[in-house]
Amino acid sequence: MTGLYWLDGAVPETPKPSSSPDPWAETSIVGKPTPRIDAYERVSGSAVYPLDVSLPDMLHAAILRCPHPHAKIKKIDPTVAAKMPGVRAILTPASPGADIPWFRRRGTPTTKILDEHCRYEGDEVAAVAGETAQQARDAIRAIRVEYEELAFVLTPEEALKPGAPVLHEGGNRVADPSIYERGDLKKGLAEADITVARTYSTACEIHTPMEVHGSVAKWDGNRLTIWDTTQGVFAVQQAVAGSLRLPMANVRVIGHYMGGGFGSKLEAGKYTIIAALLAKMTARPVKLFLTREEVFLATGNRPANTMRVTIGAKKDGTLTAIEFVSTGSGGAYPAGADTSFLATDLYTCPNVRTEDSNVFTNAGRARPFRAPGFPQCAWAFEQAMDELAVKIGMDPVELRVKNVPKISQRRGNQPYTTTGLARCLEQGAKAFGWEKAKAASKSEGPIKKGSGMAAALWGYAGGPPSTVIVKLFSDGSVNINMGAADIGTGTKTFMAMIVSEELGVPLERVQIEHADTGTTQFSAPSGGSKTVPSDGPAARAAALEVKKNLIALAAEELKVPAEDLTLAGSEIISTKDPARKIAVTAVPGLQRQQVLTGIGFRGPNPEGRAVSPFAAHFAEVEVNVRTGEVTLTRFVAAQESGRVMNRLTYDNQVFGGIVMGLGLARTEERVMDRHTGKMVNVNWHDYKIPTALDVPVDQTVVAIDPKDAECNTTGAKGLGEPATIATAAAIANAVFDATGVRVFNSPMTPAKMIQLLSEQRKKG
Amino acid sequence: MTGLYWLDGAVPETPKPSSSPDPWAETSIVGKPTPRIDAYERVSGSAVYPLDVSLPDMLHAAILRCPHPHAKIKKIDPTVAAKMPGVRAILTPASPGADIPWFRRRGTPTTKILDEHCRYEGDEVAAVAGETAQQARDAIRAIRVEYEELAFVLTPEEALKPGAPVLHEGGNRVADPSIYERGDLKKGLAEADITVARTYSTACEIHTPMEVHGSVAKWDGNRLTIWDTTQGVFAVQQAVAGSLRLPMANVRVIGHYMGGGFGSKLEAGKYTIIAALLAKMTARPVKLFLTREEVFLATGNRPANTMRVTIGAKKDGTLTAIEFVSTGSGGAYPAGADTSFLATDLYTCPNVRTEDSNVFTNAGRARPFRAPGFPQCAWAFEQAMDELAVKIGMDPVELRVKNVPKISQRRGNQPYTTTGLARCLEQGAKAFGWEKAKAASKSEGPIKKGSGMAAALWGYAGGPPSTVIVKLFSDGSVNINMGAADIGTGTKTFMAMIVSEELGVPLERVQIEHADTGTTQFSAPSGGSKTVPSDGPAARAAALEVKKNLIALAAEELKVPAEDLTLAGSEIISTKDPARKIAVTAVPGLQRQQVLTGIGFRGPNPEGRAVSPFAAHFAEVEVNVRTGEVTLTRFVAAQESGRVMNRLTYDNQVFGGIVMGLGLARTEERVMDRHTGKMVNVNWHDYKIPTALDVPVDQTVVAIDPKDAECNTTGAKGLGEPATIATAAAIANAVFDATGVRVFNSPMTPAKMIQLLSEQRKKG
Repeated sequence: MTGLYWLDGAVPETPKPSSSPDPWAETSIVGKPTPRIDAYERVSGSAVYPLDVSLPDMLHAAILRCPHPHAKIKKIDPTVAAKMPGVRAILTPASPGADIPWFRRRGTPTTKILDEHCRYEGDEVAAVAGETAQQARDAIRAIRVEYEELAFVLTPEEALKPGAPVLHEGGNRVADPSIYERGDLKKGLAEADITVARTYSTACEIHTPMEVHGSVAKWDGNRLTIWDTTQGVFAVQQAVAGSLRLPMANVRVIGHYMGGGFGSKLEAGKYTIIAALLAKMTARPVKLFLTREEVFLATGNRPANTMRVTIGAKKDGTLTAIEFVSTGSGGAYPAGADTSFLATDLYTCPNVRTEDSNVFTNAGRARPFRAPGFPQCAWAFEQAMDELAVKIGMDPVELRVKNVPKISQRRGNQPYTTTGLARCLEQGAKAFGWEKAKAASKSEGPIKKGSGMAAALWGYAGGPPSTVIVKLFSDGSVNINMGAADIGTGTKTFMAMIVSEELGVPLERVQIEHADTGTTQFSAPSGGSKTVPSDGPAARAAALEVKKNLIALAAEELKVPAEDLTLAGSEIISTKDPARKIAVTAVPGLQRQQVLTGIGFRGPNPEGRAVSPFAAHFAEVEVNVRTGEVTLTRFVAAQESGRVMNRLTYDNQVFGGIVMGLGLARTEERVMDRHTGKMVNVNWHDYKIPTALDVPVDQTVVAIDPKDAECNTTGAKGLGEPATIATAAAIANAVFDATGVRVFNSPMTPAKMIQLLSEQRKKG
Repeated sequence: MTGLYWLDGAVPETPKPSSSPDPWAETSIVGKPTPRIDAYERVSGSAVYPLDVSLPDMLHAAILRCPHPHAKIKKIDPTVAAKMPGVRAILTPASPGADIPWFRRRGTPTTKILDEHCRYEGDEVAAVAGETAQQARDAIRAIRVEYEELAFVLTPEEALKPGAPVLHEGGNRVADPSIYERGDLKKGLAEADITVARTYSTACEIHTPMEVHGSVAKWDGNRLTIWDTTQGVFAVQQAVAGSLRLPMANVRVIGHYMGGGFGSKLEAGKYTIIAALLAKMTARPVKLFLTREEVFLATGNRPANTMRVTIGAKKDGTLTAIEFVSTGSGGAYPAGADTSFLATDLYTCPNVRTEDSNVFTNAGRARPFRAPGFPQCAWAFEQAMDELAVKIGMDPVELRVKNVPKISQRRGNQPYTTTGLARCLEQGAKAFGWEKAKAASKSEGPIKKGSGMAAALWGYAGGPPSTVIVKLFSDGSVNINMGAADIGTGTKTFMAMIVSEELGVPLERVQIEHADTGTTQFSAPSGGSKTVPSDGPAARAAALEVKKNLIALAAEELKVPAEDLTLAGSEIISTKDPARKIAVTAVPGLQRQQVLTGIGFRGPNPEGRAVSPFAAHFAEVEVNVRTGEVTLTRFVAAQESGRVMNRLTYDNQVFGGIVMGLGLARTEERVMDRHTGKMVNVNWHDYKIPTALDVPVDQTVVAIDPKDAECNTTGAKGLGEPATIATAAAIANAVFDATGVRVFNSPMTPAKMIQLLSEQRKKG
């Protein structure tokens, strides 16, 4: 018996739907490794990011933030600042507009743009617009503020204690715990032969995108234009229009290039509104960009989660019960997400109960962060699965294959359009050389080697609404108009590839207008791995509309029925008589109309079907038991996200996901000073994100590319989040394999590892 | 018998078509006097005209122009200029790109962007980009050019003489004479009881828009963005892409605000290409705007025309024959138009022959100018009609009513959708008090009073293609996306009114994106009075599409058939049960889709129908026979342009047309120095356009607003050109009425009037 014996013939096949939509059977450009169409602009520096926007007469603004974790402003005196050179306007809580409500809880606003009640170190207190950024920053330091300092809480445990300081009316729970149940948990646990029950935690991570957050605001009469570094211009438009009580049409938000968001730029920031208010006060454009320190303090984070996992299973590995109880540290104004989804739907299990709580703390706010909730859940749940496999004495890959779902129990027992999990496990294990790796030597002096793996699913796969417009010019070149931001993931490139695929136009003759509420079509924010599956089908529909109209015009000229004609590159040819053909640019109707315009809408997701991307990650680590250092030496990520749209950006996305997961596992942690309530590591020196030196040279992406996807008309399901969910858990499982040590609490810093290894030695 | 007896019951009615389209039966905003929606921006100075565009690192450019009417460049030496402060690039005829072909004649290029053969004073010789406009202008003066001066011709007569200097290969005729014939001219002349045969001429007029011509060019890799002061961004895009051999998609032309063009900004200028070439050479944005002097010299003109008119008629006024022979002074690179159309189609006449010639001269080029050809033709033809009326002894209004056409003989005898000419004549005469005026005293010392009139038609009324997109946001506000430039005529305002009419959205909640080849939909250049009739129906179609989709979503929610629902302001209401209703913003489908997008296309013009706007102008003048000064004291313009879209901008358009016609009649004339071949009056001091003091306080616009127009789905036919065609002729006829003097050659300057009056006295 050789190879992965348990997989032989065991891969579940998804039943084919009766009425199949039509993703391409063959493609000539979609799927091929294709460099970004805006590579020149990005590399040459000619790309205009919002930070590069420079308008005539533009002022620069800065924000004064509360230095205390919890305080009330007793008095604020801007008179000295107001007289400083270059100062043109000062916004304090008493200024018109500063009382605009912000952050709703159960529908009720809980704070204002500038609030006398400051709930964390970083809460906005005042702002200044000046002729230069330096003058504005100097001036905010000259604003005299008298604070009444208040007692503070930094952890959910503290916050939920009776008598704890309260951040918002109604107590420190953000909401009632969110509960999900199916089957009978007690019965499931009773049926189990083996049970694992553990508590895990993940540290609070900061998004820290390369580009700081900010906006440029400019008024023209009652129309406001905002250049914003954002993942979703339409979301920013809605927030700004709502806040300033403007018609949405009067708020134009432009977000052309942006330097990373990871969820921290899904919506308008207070800085956006402040820039708009200062621009109104001064009747001049205002640029307001945060400092790196402000980004660390005040633009969001992946909350720290504490998760209790209980899994029950039969001796043969069949899961009988899952319980998952999680508490998240929401910060002062959380917009977090539940963490339990993955635990409820990654494997087949009849009896499941989960409970999610979210608690206010006097710290920066929780906010969606690449696969919100999922990496935390995977950290806990996939480590517990690993422990279960050990307890049963079963290979962890085999255990997972045994429980691969064919349907989504979480989503009404709907069958999946494609369930690539088994293939991810199989092909990932093959690529990694799983059996060989597990059998290999674990030790070389103080360096212990080990291999581990973990699996993942992502709960969402896009959907309507999305609208795209394609314009075919009379010379056969093409303009695409779409609302989506390209947040660094190559959105512009794959949209151009889709249109190129349909119209046969080379990419260098395709231009894109995007991410502008004034001039482009609607798209939801680029987040949740939804850009490909939501906007791709709309682009394809628009291109098909243009193609249909072009062929109709050619049919008129060739006097051939349109259904006999096909567009082949730059020509339209009769399928019945290839001699009858006409160049696209020679079609008189195109020259007459000058521009053929097609509009495409994203249709609904397939009814009665669940759509999810899947992944299995395989890690090889070396642990230096003397220094506690964990090194990731090899990594295989097997991803099933439906069709691969662009093999180059696909791999890039997965590499990025691995690096981010590595950060969660090894280094990233917001450190709060328990005595002052202030964040200690508000910079890239003290807050460690992985660098090129931390990343294994040997990274492999296995792309499972099912051709029969019925998820949407492109066949692609989204890749951004599923690429990072399982990474940290796979690394932790590899560390266990190397050392026998379970790292329950992320990150596995050398100090923590030394402590765990020493405890193990004591036990041992 | 009182009143306009000849009109009683005589107004021809247009037969109603069997399948009527549906212009609005009633309107709530369309037609009402409505201030421009961009009035604040225009008045406050916040509107960004291309001249206001200021980009980081932008250079400024200037053009060196040939000082001679005809010359060859023997040598050009930029070395001194190249060393001057701030100079960054110099373009000479030897530079790459300077040899791009420009101006085609019979399909063959006849010149280059910078041509060693200079054919008029103003031809482009070199260009400089510098850090400031002043440095660029200083530098062009330092470029040493050695010219070989050539003999030149300034008039068609000179140019057609044997042995005359030749501008382009193939001789000085731009093309073979353009001839139109119907019936038998000789027979018609033989049948005539009375014949008038005269030669008229009009002077060359310069467009002189308030805003000078120019462009800002910026490259991003292989994509070029141009901010251009233009009437048609798509036309500029096509010319620039063709010249620079770029895909059209790679050329983004933006033309948001512009300060008048009148035809001189219908296409790209050499300055546009030069700005792009200099920007490429320097890898920096380049702004290139002409000086006022350059605008006078080099941006086009209404050519001087010499026109021989022969009209034959029966005693009862029935026209039997029309001959019209016209020669135009095209300049060095003419893009003129024939002048004879009006003479062939304004009145019913069986026997017509016209001949149009266009001749090269060593002067600035002819170019379309508000109603190209028509005011010249009206100047000649409508004065001849006046003389005919005198000869017959018939009232000139009566003579015209007698010959009002029901069909367009020029356009295949197609019936008109509406023929408002008779109503223009009738209602204009009533409003003017025609009979009373004609009977009134003509003399008061040296001041002679008189009244005159003339009629007009315009030969075009828009048509496809035009595409407009309307986006309805979830708060019920609206964005309109259209390609048309608003050349000062209120295009944005009437488009917003159309959409407001259909969707019930107040104008202050409508915003417009326009005139941008990158982000907006196709529209032909704003010229030929085609913007309302071409783009209006597309806007209406887009709004109707949104409305249909919105009602469908409301029907889903209200569980009522969509056909029972109507959109009434901000609510959708059941016509059968008014209690069943829902606010637009409460429609769940709208909130779900967030933006409802509708696309609208301009449909074809009605088959077998001619569409033309008509006008009749009535002028009262005072002529001071001592000073030769002609004063326009009163004016009535009766216009039939189909539906009145906005009564405020309608009247503005007509007032502007009258003022421009007054310029043609009284003051405007390019003066060339016969000895040097140079233009003498290259400024607003010496080239006289009418000012507020020249315009009569008593101007009345009579708007004939037929409700049954089948021309297109708005019912509007276009107003810009028909408002200026008849003006000058009406004034000339009034001058004859006052003095008995016929002014055959425009303009009627005091010096010319003194001469004519003195000749008359000699004869008398």
